[in-house]
Amino acid sequence: MMDLSFDVIAFDADDTLWHNETRFVVAQDKFKQLMSSYHSAELIEQKLYETEIRNLQYFGYGVKGFALSVIETAIELTDGQVRGREIQAIIDVAKGMLKAPVQIFEHVEEVIAELSKSYELMIITKGDLFEQETRIARSGLVNYFTHVEIVSAKTRDTYKALLAKHSVDARRFLMVGNSPRSDILPVVAIGGRAVYIPCHNTWAHEIVINQDGGQEGYFELEHIGLLPALLERLSSN
Amino acid sequence: MMDLSFDVIAFDADDTLWHNETRFVVAQDKFKQLMSSYHSAELIEQKLYETEIRNLQYFGYGVKGFALSVIETAIELTDGQVRGREIQAIIDVAKGMLKAPVQIFEHVEEVIAELSKSYELMIITKGDLFEQETRIARSGLVNYFTHVEIVSAKTRDTYKALLAKHSVDARRFLMVGNSPRSDILPVVAIGGRAVYIPCHNTWAHEIVINQDGGQEGYFELEHIGLLPALLERLSSN
Repeated sequence: MMDLSFDVIAFDADDTLWHNETRFVVAQDKFKQLMSSYHSAELIEQKLYETEIRNLQYFGYGVKGFALSVIETAIELTDGQVRGREIQAIIDVAKGMLKAPVQIFEHVEEVIAELSKSYELMIITKGDLFEQETRIARSGLVNYFTHVEIVSAKTRDTYKALLAKHSVDARRFLMVGNSPRSDILPVVAIGGRAVYIPCHNTWAHEIVINQDGGQEGYFELEHIGLLPALLERLSSN
Repeated sequence: MMDLSFDVIAFDADDTLWHNETRFVVAQDKFKQLMSSYHSAELIEQKLYETEIRNLQYFGYGVKGFALSVIETAIELTDGQVRGREIQAIIDVAKGMLKAPVQIFEHVEEVIAELSKSYELMIITKGDLFEQETRIARSGLVNYFTHVEIVSAKTRDTYKALLAKHSVDARRFLMVGNSPRSDILPVVAIGGRAVYIPCHNTWAHEIVINQDGGQEGYFELEHIGLLPALLERLSSN
C-alpha cells in the first residue's frame, strides 16, 4: 500500500462538520405546508428547485438567496395571490435558519481536537460570507483551525490558489468533505488527496458524481469518527 | 512635514472604486414609487431604514439582505395587503442590481494602473462574498491587485489580521476609502495611514464620523485622481 502523510488537513464545514442541509429540508417542509392549500407537495418542491437553479447566477448559495427563491416560487405558484403574512412567514423561517444553533455532528469535536495536535487544520467552505462566519464562530470549534477560508465556489483553481497562498504542497494536502463535486474531485485533480464522507441530506444539485476523477486519490468513510484510524493506517504502511 | 512612503496601498471597492450606493438609492426610489398609493415617501424611507438596521444582525450587508428588508417593509406598510406582483417587482429590482454593469468612478482606471507599477495594491471590501467577487471580476480591474480580501466587517482586528496574514508593516500601509468608520478610523488606530475620499451617496448608517481617531493619520481628498500627487508629496518631503 501507499505511504501517505499530510501537513494540512482541510475540512468542508456545512454537512461535514455540522448539519446544514437539514435546515433547508425543514424550511422546505414548512413552505410546502404553507402552500398546501394551493398545490401538491411534489409540485411545490419541483417549482422551488427550478427557481433555485435559475436564481443561482444572481444569488449564489445561502439562506438569503434561498428565501428570495422561496418567495418567488410562492408568487408563481399562487398566480400572485400569496398573502403578505405568508411571505412574512417565509422571511421568519429564513431568520430562524440564520439564528439557529449550529448542530455539530457526532465525533466531530473529539476528532478535530485530536487531529489539531498533529496537523495544521483548515476550514474551506463555500457559501455566504456573513452566514458562514457567523456559524463558524458559533460552532465553538474555530480555535482548532489555523485558517478559515470562505469561498464562493470550489473549483480546481480555487484549491490551487489556496494551496499557493498558504504554501502547501498538494501531495501533502488532504481535504475532507461531503460533496464529490466540491470537496473531492477538484482536489484529486490537482494532486491532493480527499476523504469523502457522504451526508444523507445532500442537496440534489450537489449529487453529480463524476467518475472521471478516478478512485485512487480519495477514500470514503461512513463518518468522521473513522478519520484518525484511516490517517494512521495510511502513514504507517 | 513627515516623510511617508508605503509598500502596500489597499482600496475599499464599493463607493471608492465604483458606484454602489447609487444602486440602492435608485432601488429605494422604485420602492417608494411602488408603495406610493399606500404611504408618503418619507414614511416609506424611514420604515425601510428601521427594517434594514433591525435585520443587519440576520442578513449582514448586500443586495439580498436589502431585498428581504424591502419585502418585509412592504408587508408592514400595507398591513399584509401587498400584492404578489409588487413583491415580484422588488425581487426583479434586486436581480437587476446584481446584474447591473459595474460603473467605475472617473480617474480610477488610470490611477490604479499607474500606482500598480510602484506599489503592491489590494482590495479590502466588506459585504456579500458572491456579490463582491462578481463585481470585482466584472470591473476589469482585478489584474492590478495582488490580493483581494472580502470581509464581513472592517474593524481594527480585521485590519490587524490582514496585515499579519500578508506580512505588511502597519506603518507602511495605506488604506483608501469612503467610509470613516470602516476604512479610515480602524486603520489609523492600528498605526496605518488612510486616505478618506468622501462619496456623496454614503448610506446614513455609515455616516458616523468619530473624531477620536484624530486627524493626523489620514488625509482627505476630493477624488481619487488626486492620490498619485498626494503620495508623491508625502514621500518627497
